[in-house]
Amino acid sequence: MKRERWRKSFSEWFNGILRSADIMDTRYPVKGLYVWLPYGLKLRNQVFGVIRQLLEQTGHQEVLFPLLIPEDIFKKEAEHIRGFEGEVYWVTHGGLDKLDVKLALRPTSETSIYPMFALWVRSHADLPIRVYQIVNIFRYETKMTKPMIRLREVTTFKEAHTAHATWDEAEAQVREAVKIYKRFFDELGVPYIVTRRPPWDTFAGAKYSLAFDTLAPDGRTLQIGTAHNLGQNFAKVYELKFETPDGKHEYVYQTCYGISERVIAAVMMVHGDDAGLCMPPTVAPIQVVVVPIPFKSKEAPVQQIAAAATNELVTAGIKAHLDDRDLRPGRKFYHWERRGVPLRLEIGPEDIEKDQVTAVRRDTGERQAIPRRALRNKVRELLEAIDGDLRERAWKFFKEMTHEASDVGTIKQLMDRRGGIVRVPWCGEEKCGLELEEKTGGDILGQELDGKPATGVCPICSKRAKLNILVTRTY
Amino acid sequence: MKRERWRKSFSEWFNGILRSADIMDTRYPVKGLYVWLPYGLKLRNQVFGVIRQLLEQTGHQEVLFPLLIPEDIFKKEAEHIRGFEGEVYWVTHGGLDKLDVKLALRPTSETSIYPMFALWVRSHADLPIRVYQIVNIFRYETKMTKPMIRLREVTTFKEAHTAHATWDEAEAQVREAVKIYKRFFDELGVPYIVTRRPPWDTFAGAKYSLAFDTLAPDGRTLQIGTAHNLGQNFAKVYELKFETPDGKHEYVYQTCYGISERVIAAVMMVHGDDAGLCMPPTVAPIQVVVVPIPFKSKEAPVQQIAAAATNELVTAGIKAHLDDRDLRPGRKFYHWERRGVPLRLEIGPEDIEKDQVTAVRRDTGERQAIPRRALRNKVRELLEAIDGDLRERAWKFFKEMTHEASDVGTIKQLMDRRGGIVRVPWCGEEKCGLELEEKTGGDILGQELDGKPATGVCPICSKRAKLNILVTRTY
Repeated sequence: MKRERWRKSFSEWFNGILRSADIMDTRYPVKGLYVWLPYGLKLRNQVFGVIRQLLEQTGHQEVLFPLLIPEDIFKKEAEHIRGFEGEVYWVTHGGLDKLDVKLALRPTSETSIYPMFALWVRSHADLPIRVYQIVNIFRYETKMTKPMIRLREVTTFKEAHTAHATWDEAEAQVREAVKIYKRFFDELGVPYIVTRRPPWDTFAGAKYSLAFDTLAPDGRTLQIGTAHNLGQNFAKVYELKFETPDGKHEYVYQTCYGISERVIAAVMMVHGDDAGLCMPPTVAPIQVVVVPIPFKSKEAPVQQIAAAATNELVTAGIKAHLDDRDLRPGRKFYHWERRGVPLRLEIGPEDIEKDQVTAVRRDTGERQAIPRRALRNKVRELLEAIDGDLRERAWKFFKEMTHEASDVGTIKQLMDRRGGIVRVPWCGEEKCGLELEEKTGGDILGQELDGKPATGVCPICSKRAKLNILVTRTY
Repeated sequence: MKRERWRKSFSEWFNGILRSADIMDTRYPVKGLYVWLPYGLKLRNQVFGVIRQLLEQTGHQEVLFPLLIPEDIFKKEAEHIRGFEGEVYWVTHGGLDKLDVKLALRPTSETSIYPMFALWVRSHADLPIRVYQIVNIFRYETKMTKPMIRLREVTTFKEAHTAHATWDEAEAQVREAVKIYKRFFDELGVPYIVTRRPPWDTFAGAKYSLAFDTLAPDGRTLQIGTAHNLGQNFAKVYELKFETPDGKHEYVYQTCYGISERVIAAVMMVHGDDAGLCMPPTVAPIQVVVVPIPFKSKEAPVQQIAAAATNELVTAGIKAHLDDRDLRPGRKFYHWERRGVPLRLEIGPEDIEKDQVTAVRRDTGERQAIPRRALRNKVRELLEAIDGDLRERAWKFFKEMTHEASDVGTIKQLMDRRGGIVRVPWCGEEKCGLELEEKTGGDILGQELDGKPATGVCPICSKRAKLNILVTRTY
């Protein structure tokens, strides 16, 4: 019961929690720009630490390219610029001078990175290249902006860029990217579905685009990751050639894949409840908060044992924090519940008498006594259990919200009532796709990657379905 | 002997090492913008990891503010904008639209941060505030640009901002900042001198500015850190008031202090030699490289023992890397020497026979056999010794290059010949200071913090000296 109220007023919940959990201040005086607060920034660093590690383990090297891209270079790839020209910020003046060449604030970095690739690649021995960077990017959003989700400055964008000798290797790299992202979202306990985006929703300049979507508590989907096979499009524009073993000169094949700070919104969303955030221990900035419950004559020993317990956990590599502020315990409980600290340890006079601590799980509220000497192991066990349970709970909701339907009325009803994801048979014609979107008020995510074959007919033209597509309402 | 050639052609050395040690690619097609390469970025992350840790330990909280600052807010502090108006990049267009309000790319973040402080501070209980961020900042440099040193995008700028209830607390915070920075540079083995900048070189909007300078191998100084007492200047402009315990409303007192990627240039510079970089183990991306020296029938055991040794070191928390590429050992030595890996371990057939490894120090070239079972401890010992010796060597050069002089001729001669830092008595008049700069071709750093009292007379007006100032040529 307690869990469900927040889903209904999800937008309020999200905006409220940003401030009250010390995640973000949304009062910066420019639309679509926000201020990361200390606890939020710690969460961000944890989450991006996980993807950084996964990328390093899989042969990606971190680099850092400039933010500013000269107009002539930016505009070389025609399709790409058509996709972005409406939303690029332009620097036109330096000091009191007008610049000779306008500079774009990167909306993404293909056009700053690939001209350098052209200098780095000479022969097949220089391939493959696999690099990534974590940077700020800019989009001049004219729609309604929303913290972490629809931004003018995406403060935290992880983009990977690769170059290969063959189409097959690029294909394999896209699959590898999907695998890496799956592991990433699994670590965060964030459920997802992977689709191949329809042609009209493909990344500007790509052969095709895959995307990961998760589900917000209000039943809308949120795109949280993309992977693109760029083919040789950019290579041809930026003269990215290499010499093959038999002395021919060929264009490279490229891929790119990205994750933005939306993933942090996802972590907050899928694991929340009425009382606030529920951080998965894998990325919680604080995994365990220790709250002494002093009682009359027992002040000193309570404080002392609480400090010792915290120390023991920190030494064991657990992110434990002692809250020894001069406040009533109830206020401290509330404070850390909002912030979603997975485990609270209370230490009061009774605990001292019995040589135990009292553990309270944030996700279930469950209390249990832990013998003092079993502290470390038991805390580790509980954190693991919380990770698993949060993941399971999130996937359960995700699956409950995934439906099948094959007629416009049912799809529209699902969209209007609960949202979620609807699997729909489709003939494959763009015309029918767009009409389906219009009639149901839904958006087509695309075809599920490795999804099951279609049966039945297209709900628009009644021709035999060639594939299933997923219809949702998106953020 | 070997050490000294590089100092004479320092500029070439620096530009060459950027590419050949995989630090930076300087061919990005916009002046003053560069590309961080993987090894360079690892070094950068190590160095900024150290300052991050020092700041966290001293009560600073990390935050992240937007890059874009609206013109009206940016221009509120008159002195500040006078100081920066010549070098601010302006965004004037979003997509195809002209923006209603121009947006500045932050050249530093006082004007984005302090309006938010005004929302955060209500009463004395909200003070002090101590936050920092690590961000990219922009300066439209019209002078000659130089990688890491004079940039249009400073990719990595750590800026701390604090607010206090009293002038004294702000003063104490500036001293604390100096202490933190001293510890930081000490960890990096980078020598420094701290001065109070003369009025004409004070940060725009500050009461006074302190700065840290180190010495490049060519005898020029490089400013590597600053700390400013802002008094109530910004507080008055941004209405940053708080309620005192007795109900009055007063403006806060503020400080700010910054470190940029110049510190990375400093680490590279002060510890180099003719063969390349010499990374101090505290920040070396790779502390130990293990190179197997296979020899005929002994290939397999050599590889195996090299791998085992690397593993053992990694498990002990040492950044060890096994170079098992199919290259001649000589090429590997050269490769890692350029990159300044502090310690090389060679493992050949003779080492195996004697159950030892051969360690070679990057800084001294010294070779020694280490018994296999003492590996971990001995490597730790050697790394510590290298840290200490590099620091000592750097300070030795710094002190040798610090002179005293009290007449224009000698100062000019020192400037022209070797560079370095010259301590000069001064009457305290700005006029004499500027004339001294002009006549000697030097720049006045300012008055040494906690320096010794002046004796003698001003070399320009011959009046009794009030203080000593430091004269150098600066980057």
